[in-house]
Amino acid sequence: MKVIVEKDFEAMSETTKNILLGHMNQDKRVNLSITAGNTPVGVYKKMVEIVKDSPNYTNVHYYNFDEIPVAGQNEGITITDLRKLYLNPANIHEANIHPLTVENYAEQDKRLAMDGGLDAMLIGLGGDGHFCGNMPTTTRFENLTYKVKVSGEEPWFVPGEMEKGMEFVTMGPVSVMRVKHLILIVNGEKKAEMVKHVLQGSVTEKYPASILQLHPNLTVILDEEAASKLDRYV
Amino acid sequence: MKVIVEKDFEAMSETTKNILLGHMNQDKRVNLSITAGNTPVGVYKKMVEIVKDSPNYTNVHYYNFDEIPVAGQNEGITITDLRKLYLNPANIHEANIHPLTVENYAEQDKRLAMDGGLDAMLIGLGGDGHFCGNMPTTTRFENLTYKVKVSGEEPWFVPGEMEKGMEFVTMGPVSVMRVKHLILIVNGEKKAEMVKHVLQGSVTEKYPASILQLHPNLTVILDEEAASKLDRYV
Amino acid sequence: MKVIVEKDFEAMSETTKNILLGHMNQDKRVNLSITAGNTPVGVYKKMVEIVKDSPNYTNVHYYNFDEIPVAGQNEGITITDLRKLYLNPANIHEANIHPLTVENYAEQDKRLAMDGGLDAMLIGLGGDGHFCGNMPTTTRFENLTYKVKVSGEEPWFVPGEMEKGMEFVTMGPVSVMRVKHLILIVNGEKKAEMVKHVLQGSVTEKYPASILQLHPNLTVILDEEAASKLDRYV
Amino acid sequence: MKVIVEKDFEAMSETTKNILLGHMNQDKRVNLSITAGNTPVGVYKKMVEIVKDSPNYTNVHYYNFDEIPVAGQNEGITITDLRKLYLNPANIHEANIHPLTVENYAEQDKRLAMDGGLDAMLIGLGGDGHFCGNMPTTTRFENLTYKVKVSGEEPWFVPGEMEKGMEFVTMGPVSVMRVKHLILIVNGEKKAEMVKHVLQGSVTEKYPASILQLHPNLTVILDEEAASKLDRYV
Repeated sequence: MKVIVEKDFEAMSETTKNILLGHMNQDKRVNLSITAGNTPVGVYKKMVEIVKDSPNYTNVHYYNFDEIPVAGQNEGITITDLRKLYLNPANIHEANIHPLTVENYAEQDKRLAMDGGLDAMLIGLGGDGHFCGNMPTTTRFENLTYKVKVSGEEPWFVPGEMEKGMEFVTMGPVSVMRVKHLILIVNGEKKAEMVKHVLQGSVTEKYPASILQLHPNLTVILDEEAASKLDRYV
Repeated sequence: MKVIVEKDFEAMSETTKNILLGHMNQDKRVNLSITAGNTPVGVYKKMVEIVKDSPNYTNVHYYNFDEIPVAGQNEGITITDLRKLYLNPANIHEANIHPLTVENYAEQDKRLAMDGGLDAMLIGLGGDGHFCGNMPTTTRFENLTYKVKVSGEEPWFVPGEMEKGMEFVTMGPVSVMRVKHLILIVNGEKKAEMVKHVLQGSVTEKYPASILQLHPNLTVILDEEAASKLDRYV
Repeated sequence: MKVIVEKDFEAMSETTKNILLGHMNQDKRVNLSITAGNTPVGVYKKMVEIVKDSPNYTNVHYYNFDEIPVAGQNEGITITDLRKLYLNPANIHEANIHPLTVENYAEQDKRLAMDGGLDAMLIGLGGDGHFCGNMPTTTRFENLTYKVKVSGEEPWFVPGEMEKGMEFVTMGPVSVMRVKHLILIVNGEKKAEMVKHVLQGSVTEKYPASILQLHPNLTVILDEEAASKLDRYV
Repeated sequence: MKVIVEKDFEAMSETTKNILLGHMNQDKRVNLSITAGNTPVGVYKKMVEIVKDSPNYTNVHYYNFDEIPVAGQNEGITITDLRKLYLNPANIHEANIHPLTVENYAEQDKRLAMDGGLDAMLIGLGGDGHFCGNMPTTTRFENLTYKVKVSGEEPWFVPGEMEKGMEFVTMGPVSVMRVKHLILIVNGEKKAEMVKHVLQGSVTEKYPASILQLHPNLTVILDEEAASKLDRYV
């Protein structure tokens, strides 16, 4: 594991953008899986400036790694967010976008293998220790891409926001371990304790992201607040 | 994970030899870590016939992945066994042999990184679910190469054969996950139940080898007896 | 470049089979491009014994690297020969066979990139220094996959066997340089002089295969006769 | 080949820096070979800001790819320039610097293989079509790292600046083809014609850099002036 601590959100975003562009600028097909949410907003803003209308990135293909379907909508929450944050403003061709859905999830690992595997994946860390859709109590380390049916008993269940019986899909720990370069970004003081649990504590399904310690090529980029509880880092 | 089931010990050994030679015949430095013990005896016998006095394999470097020192002896049990089974009969140059010892274990992961990483590792499976020196009760999934001091309370402690307070070193789960191609060989009916636990059961430190389900490029070669309890394999 | 000299055709075929199986036994999609002709007959015979009706090689995909169409036939000379020698006796699924044709050759390099690139390619050497369909007088080192229209003036034109105006397609030097592991097999005394030109002489379009000296991961497997004119090899 | 055209020197330098950092930020030993001269000055200025006194780049090792010894000086022109432009201002540890010299050049290719190979190399283009020290009239495509003795008859010989009988060393075309990611940067109108020759013309020893068309993973970064004579680029 390589831990990079940057001064703030801006510097974290800049370094992350550099890493992603380092992959994208190669002379070969590059398969990227990228995260929705708030943490990567700065990264995508920087990338859009470079990628938009550029002829240089037609070799890059995009994959989401989890999805929550929405009743009455064609597309789920994750891909909708990715389109808004990055895919639309960067004018990515539809042929380069490969949505994971509740319908096709069972084929996701095979499809990725057929496409040559993921070169890089950008993920964030949940305050409860989740990564992708690998949540406490519903994650098994032996999972490939899988579907979860929410019972309402989960510690992260929020009545009103979520519904009992709702489903979502996610690439599992085994799927993520196959990514050639895994990039984890975390910012903010309120995640500092979980960063320590996950990167320097025991590997346990209680904090699913702790399994990432076993990834053979993991780069972690933190702002100083997120890194503030770590004992040491190299 | 790719599971290959062969008819018997002979066929398992032949396939394993082919895989190792596939790596060794490339035009680049190839770093191999290989196992001592009874399971690979057939593999090494076949390899010695090909490698002995051949000019074709000077690009191959050998590393042991665990070691048990022996009082009054220069070298430990593992490397002594490897010399007897393979390194001596194959006339491997001393410059291509990189022993892991109780003295240098703390540098093992860094040293491997400096040498370009392990291209392949051949391992076996213990009847109690161990791999390398990653034994039940003393293995933590977050371990790099580490040293164990035997308390005598371990479930695998055999009075007479082992001594309380003895030490051994082993590459840990994190170290093994970095190997580019991991090859696990198992034969015989008496390991069939453990093969099922480890390959198709939960990932748990109770059976340390269960973590191998997460390796991004794992080939398992079984004889029919060892595979006899598996539900399905592809 | 790594040069392996084996005693005879049988030993050359055995080593080549081992290298190919080393690739095929990995836990990922493996893309192979393989050669038609007489040189690989021994390799394919050995491989068919192992691959036929085995569940272990569904991850392997096959590509031909050149093709000569035949009037009135659905498929060309190369793929027809490959089906006879290997693909049919090994019962390879049609979904794993990716023919290069006069119709689709302009898409070959892009298609291979989309499939993750070729992991290995097995080629032979022509007595005139050609490799794949890269023939003297019609090869430019800067070629990707290209089509040749035979004028009848080429030094290798054989009236009666070939017709003026006939066409063929081949992956070019640039395409072959992208293969991750290139394996060249040559046997017999009558190619010994050309082996020396190509492996130890100047890089020149006069002997197209001389460009292979620049491949980053080339393994050459010769029988003793084919190696008999080499100055030294390691 | 992937050609990226940027507006100006500043944008070219920014993109190049991003690519190099993309490699350097990985969690493994990264071997870089970098160029001296004027073209990379902007790249190094940007990199020094990021790398200086950072704990994040101890995994990066540096190699020069050519050298011209200077009478009465410990170190040659290239490494002296690299120290001034980048290695000194970035405070790179001496243990991470691996000079190529007239004394050790014969071991360079083997040494690189032992270190795991070069992950990336940054090179420029000479106005006469040279790359590294691969000059017109003294370059053979079949060369590994080699030494040149200057006769004074070379078209690029500048009396006064150079002396007859002087020597230099350089990694050759075969050595450069082994680099995993090759990055070529060129700026300015006066190189535009040579850029066209080298990237879109015949592969010929007359313009040694034309061989780079055969590299399996080449990224070319040009400013608009350097790209102004290209027919098309994708």
